[in-house]
Amino acid sequence: MSLRENLIVQAKAAQISSRQLAKAGTKEKNKALNLIADKLLARKNEILEINEKDMIKGQNNGLTKALLDRLKLTEARIESMALGLREVAAQEDPIGEIPQMWKRPNGLQIGKKRVPLGVIGIIYEARPNVTVDVAGLCLKSGNSVILRGGSNAFNSNKILTKIIQSGLKAAGLAQEAVQLIETTDRKAVDILFTLNDYLDVLIPRGGAGLIQKVVNESKVPVIETGVGNCHVYVNKEADFTKAKKIVFNAKYSRPAVCNSAETLLIDQEIAADFLPEMARIFAESEVELRGCKKTRELVPKIKEATEADYEKEFLDYIMAVKIVDNYEEAVEHIYSYGTKHSEAIITENYTTALSFLDDIDAAAVYINASTRFTDGSEFGLGAETGISTQKLHARGPMGLKELTTTKYIIMGNGQIRE
Amino acid sequence: MSLRENLIVQAKAAQISSRQLAKAGTKEKNKALNLIADKLLARKNEILEINEKDMIKGQNNGLTKALLDRLKLTEARIESMALGLREVAAQEDPIGEIPQMWKRPNGLQIGKKRVPLGVIGIIYEARPNVTVDVAGLCLKSGNSVILRGGSNAFNSNKILTKIIQSGLKAAGLAQEAVQLIETTDRKAVDILFTLNDYLDVLIPRGGAGLIQKVVNESKVPVIETGVGNCHVYVNKEADFTKAKKIVFNAKYSRPAVCNSAETLLIDQEIAADFLPEMARIFAESEVELRGCKKTRELVPKIKEATEADYEKEFLDYIMAVKIVDNYEEAVEHIYSYGTKHSEAIITENYTTALSFLDDIDAAAVYINASTRFTDGSEFGLGAETGISTQKLHARGPMGLKELTTTKYIIMGNGQIRE
Repeated sequence: MSLRENLIVQAKAAQISSRQLAKAGTKEKNKALNLIADKLLARKNEILEINEKDMIKGQNNGLTKALLDRLKLTEARIESMALGLREVAAQEDPIGEIPQMWKRPNGLQIGKKRVPLGVIGIIYEARPNVTVDVAGLCLKSGNSVILRGGSNAFNSNKILTKIIQSGLKAAGLAQEAVQLIETTDRKAVDILFTLNDYLDVLIPRGGAGLIQKVVNESKVPVIETGVGNCHVYVNKEADFTKAKKIVFNAKYSRPAVCNSAETLLIDQEIAADFLPEMARIFAESEVELRGCKKTRELVPKIKEATEADYEKEFLDYIMAVKIVDNYEEAVEHIYSYGTKHSEAIITENYTTALSFLDDIDAAAVYINASTRFTDGSEFGLGAETGISTQKLHARGPMGLKELTTTKYIIMGNGQIRE
Repeated sequence: MSLRENLIVQAKAAQISSRQLAKAGTKEKNKALNLIADKLLARKNEILEINEKDMIKGQNNGLTKALLDRLKLTEARIESMALGLREVAAQEDPIGEIPQMWKRPNGLQIGKKRVPLGVIGIIYEARPNVTVDVAGLCLKSGNSVILRGGSNAFNSNKILTKIIQSGLKAAGLAQEAVQLIETTDRKAVDILFTLNDYLDVLIPRGGAGLIQKVVNESKVPVIETGVGNCHVYVNKEADFTKAKKIVFNAKYSRPAVCNSAETLLIDQEIAADFLPEMARIFAESEVELRGCKKTRELVPKIKEATEADYEKEFLDYIMAVKIVDNYEEAVEHIYSYGTKHSEAIITENYTTALSFLDDIDAAAVYINASTRFTDGSEFGLGAETGISTQKLHARGPMGLKELTTTKYIIMGNGQIRE
């Protein structure tokens, strides 16, 4: 069989099992989730051994330290995957909910019922924990999933998928509800893009390059995730104590993730009072700043920022700085350079704060808080499959509900349309 | 300027005006809608004259009677467009709604706020009334719109767009919020597909060919609309009186629209009792039936149905008929041939009826009612921009709310993430 034929076989099996899963009860789905968690813990050593193989191959292939860290599984990480599954089991099942039902003058009763999407394709990079996290969310929301993990994590993903499938089987569910694409051939992704007869949605999780490729080439509807060029704007009426704490946290607490801030905007009027102290705090933690001309007039040792620096998601201990004339310039800068992910203003002015909520077009808009909160758990939505930066279907952290759709159900007693 | 450059100029203007429109108040938007309605009525004769030109060109180009009928504007149709705008003005404004706001343990207040999508592209065929209907819905939901109408309606669309723009201007809103692509060059559509930096969504309204082209080629996210291969399934426990009325209505009341039924499925057990009478009713109204072998054994004068007949959206006074062994076969037939639009069962059996709601994956699933009700107004949702047959973002009739998205707003007082 060709690779394409193979993938179609997998996609068809996913579609068939999605019909079964759509009708599975919450109890069955939770049973499977808990069984998978048990099995992950029981087979911890086996998983670690196989992951070690991926690690050695990765080292030989010259992966960076950061990538190797993402690839590595530890006892603690396996325990955290298992815990994640149990938490998803404990979450409310969104499927079957009919939040509203209304009656029309002709007696028709019309309701909107929440149902699974069907078959979800996930394309991700070298973090094997995504395999388990995503499988758990898809399972709970009644969807089949086809996983395409990074080639560096291939063996780890294979054993994790096997364990997930054995849990599904033990709970009486179809194993094909969770399938891994069992090749590292890059062509598999191009083929996935064309399977719109079988896949209901493709979700890429990874860097800007991967996401752009999927958006440009996929015929399957896509939910775009993740690229975050986020800003913190310190308004002239900011409380400096809050501002310093928030700016530092937005950059420093975890620079490699999409909700960390990349650019600091400061109002001209307060720059001389605010910037030197902020620069000192960053220097102490070895965060590199790159600033505009005015920034460097105030703190000469700051490097010069290029146009590219304002466009970049550094994902590192680097932050661009720009001093703006006023609120309007800050909003325009965010409009031009932002990726509509997470944006924050620090201000004590009521009107300015509320204007910012209106003026900024992003998945999450903050007043006086760190952009780092853009996350399913932090928002109180439970585990997430990624953070959508597009406007259709889902925006912001995608929890269980974002993996569902609705259908209209209409109960009549003989009505016809005049 | 090249066509591409021209379109980018239009798209940029749409984007700028969408930012203004997003902040426009309900009063301003309603004022514009009512002013446009007034102007349509005031300039009725001018519109009719220009439409007459399109009609003459259409006749010369050999358009079918059905297409000419869609193209034609009359006094009554202009009045109905104006009335439609006033109805949209009377509908609730979805923008700005914050249905929920919750407080996290750290004191963050998080809410989801309804906001416009931004810039919407609509590609449609030769019905000039779509120009006005769609512009009204986009305006009320705070979106800019770029219209690409059918070339046969080019002059009619141009005058209608001009009138809409003069209404926008008179209400103090940007005229570029509603723009028509002012060329009939087919390349314009291919260029639109690539403008994902400016357009937030593309909605094709038209035949299966157009929709497939958009889905396959567009980099802009698409909402698929309209193709409806709908079924009515007469279960063995159907009330025949209801069944006959509903089957006839689902086919005959308006065969050229997507929610009309194309195939009649009948349980084997009741076929001999039900079919001959049903066939007689259809024959009286000159509806052509095309049936399976068993159908033709019962009513020999019915033509033979080919495989293609079960796949087709006839959009005509033609209906395919299939006698099925049982409920399961009916569900499988719908699963294999349906387009996930509207599907109906006729049955008095409680368990069968509720199973059908679960087993059928479609935008609208009916018990004992005609599929012809799948429509924004009939559902009580107001005017619609089309009926989505995809699962992402919107499913079923798309009203004002489906032309919006949400953003998270987060109000803090200095919170940072640990």
